[in-house]
Amino acid sequence: MAVYTDLTDEELAELLQRYDLGRALAFKGVAEGVENSNFLLETETGRYFLTIYEKRVKREDLPFFMGVMEALGAASFPAPRPVHLKDGGFLTEVRGKACAIVSFLTGVSPFRPNPAQCRAIGTTLAAMHGALDGFPMERKNALGPSSWPGLVTPRLEEAEKLQLGLAALVEADLKELQDWPSGLPEGAIHADLFPDNALFLGDEVTGVIDFYFACTDARAYDIAVCLNAWCFEGREYNLTKGRALIGAYERARPLSAAEREAIPLLARGAAMRFFATRLWDWAATPAGALVRPKDPREYADKLAFHRRATRASDYGA
Amino acid sequence: MAVYTDLTDEELAELLQRYDLGRALAFKGVAEGVENSNFLLETETGRYFLTIYEKRVKREDLPFFMGVMEALGAASFPAPRPVHLKDGGFLTEVRGKACAIVSFLTGVSPFRPNPAQCRAIGTTLAAMHGALDGFPMERKNALGPSSWPGLVTPRLEEAEKLQLGLAALVEADLKELQDWPSGLPEGAIHADLFPDNALFLGDEVTGVIDFYFACTDARAYDIAVCLNAWCFEGREYNLTKGRALIGAYERARPLSAAEREAIPLLARGAAMRFFATRLWDWAATPAGALVRPKDPREYADKLAFHRRATRASDYGA
Repeated sequence: MAVYTDLTDEELAELLQRYDLGRALAFKGVAEGVENSNFLLETETGRYFLTIYEKRVKREDLPFFMGVMEALGAASFPAPRPVHLKDGGFLTEVRGKACAIVSFLTGVSPFRPNPAQCRAIGTTLAAMHGALDGFPMERKNALGPSSWPGLVTPRLEEAEKLQLGLAALVEADLKELQDWPSGLPEGAIHADLFPDNALFLGDEVTGVIDFYFACTDARAYDIAVCLNAWCFEGREYNLTKGRALIGAYERARPLSAAEREAIPLLARGAAMRFFATRLWDWAATPAGALVRPKDPREYADKLAFHRRATRASDYGA
Repeated sequence: MAVYTDLTDEELAELLQRYDLGRALAFKGVAEGVENSNFLLETETGRYFLTIYEKRVKREDLPFFMGVMEALGAASFPAPRPVHLKDGGFLTEVRGKACAIVSFLTGVSPFRPNPAQCRAIGTTLAAMHGALDGFPMERKNALGPSSWPGLVTPRLEEAEKLQLGLAALVEADLKELQDWPSGLPEGAIHADLFPDNALFLGDEVTGVIDFYFACTDARAYDIAVCLNAWCFEGREYNLTKGRALIGAYERARPLSAAEREAIPLLARGAAMRFFATRLWDWAATPAGALVRPKDPREYADKLAFHRRATRASDYGA
C-alpha cells in the first residue's frame, strides 16, 4: 500500500492534456500494490487507473506489460486496457517517471477464495492464455529458477532464524529445483495471479489486474503459481480447490502429459519463487518500518507440502 | 496516507448487510488522511466513502461529526452525507473499531489555490456557517488556545533546533495569545479547512470534506484558519487572495466590528494551532519513518508574518 509519487492538480491537468479523456472529476491515491504509485482517476469520459512506475519496475519492460494488457483487451478479456495518448503511444512521463493510464475494472478481491472462485480463476487463466496465444513480444521471467539461489542463499541465516532447520531444507530444495522442466508449452503468462490480483462479483471473475510480473514462460507454471496462491488453507493444500482450478482450466485447454507430470515440480518452484522474494524483502526491511513485508513462513509451509507431494494427483490434476 | 485497518471481502459483505446499499462492486483503500483508514466503496446503489476510525479520533466525538455532516447534507451543502444503517444510526463497528459510510463527492483538491479559488472557498465557508446556524450539538475545540502551551512548551528545544531563536519567539507568542478574543459569534465550524479538504472542478467548489476537527467555536476563527491555509505563497501573505476570501465570505455574512478587529489575533492563533500539532508530530516521529510529518517551519514562517501584521486590513479585511 503506497503512493510514492503524488501529483498536484496542476500536474494532473497537464498530464491529461496528453490524452483525450477530458478533465479530472476525481483523483485519489490508492493503497494498492507495493511497487508503484496508483491513483483512481475519474474524468469526463469515465473511470481509469493511473500508475506511476517506481524504481522496481524496469522501464524497458513496460512496453511488454502494456502489450499484454492491450492484447487481452483486444480479445475482450477483462484486463485493464491501456489508454492511448494523443500521440498514439501508451507510455508517458510525469515527474521524470514513466506512467500510464488504464481502464478501471469493478470487482472485489477474494480474501479466502472458495472452490467456486478457484474454478472461476481456472477458467479465466485458460481464457487468458488463449487470448495471448500468438502474442508476439517476449520477456524472460526475471524471477525464474536461475534467480532463486541468488535471492535465497545470502539470506539463509535469516531463514534459519525464522524456523529452525529451514536453511538446510531450502538449500536441498534449491538443488532439486535445478532439474527444472523444459520444453513445456510457453506463452505470455501472468506469473503473479494471486487473489489480490483478481476481481470478482460473487463467484464471477470481473477482472485480472497487475501484469507487472508478466513474462514469457511455461503456461503450466502460471497454473502452478495459482495452485499456491488459491488452493491452500493455511499449511494444508485443499484438493477440492485444486481439482476445481485445474479441472476448469483443462475444460478450455487440456494439459499435455508432460505438463501434468511437471505440476509437482512447477508448484514447488513457484513456492520457492515467492519464498525467495519474501525472504529478501523480510531481511531488507528495518524492524520499525511502517510497511511490514509479507511473512516468508507462509511459503516455507507451502514448500513443506510440496516436498511431500510428488504426483500430479496430489494437486488434483 | 494510510490504511491502518484493511477489510476482507467477507467482512465488507457482512458490513454492507447492515445498510441498504446493495453489494460491493469495488472497494479500494485510499491514501487520504492520516488519522483514519479510508476506502472508496462502490455498490449497486452508488459510490461511497467508508471510514474506519483509528485511535486519534475519540469515539464520543463521532456523533457530533456525523451530526454536522448530516445537517450540511440536509441544507444541500456539498459535504459527505452519512448513510443510514438499517437500524437508523450512522455509526457501526468493524474489527472492534467505529466506522461510518458517507456519500462520495467528486472534485480535485487545489495544490496552489488561485484568487478565484480563494474567493470560492470564502463563499463556501459562509454558506457552511449559514447551513450550521442553529445546529444544536456542541463540541469544545480540543485544539483551542488552552491546548497550545501543553503541546509547544515540552518541544521548545526541538523548535530551537529547527530555527535558531524560534523557542523564545514562540514563548512570547503563547503569552500574547493568552489575550484571546471572547464573545465573538460562535457556531459549529470546520476548523481544518485546508485546500486538501476542499474539492473543486476548475474554480468551483464541489465539496468540503474531513469534518473530524469540527467543533463549536468562533466563526471568525474558521476564517482565520482559511487565511493561513489558502492565502500564503510561501512565507508571504497574498493580500489579493485574502481580500478575495474575506470579501466573498462577507457578501453572505458581513463581519461584526469585533470580528474584524479580532482577525489578526485569530489568524496568529490559528497559525500557532497548526505549528503546535506539527511540532508535536515532528518531534514524535522517528528519523527513519516512512511517513514524514509535515514540517512545522511552514507555520513558524506564518507566525513571523502574524507578529508583524496587527490590523485587519493587513489581511484584506
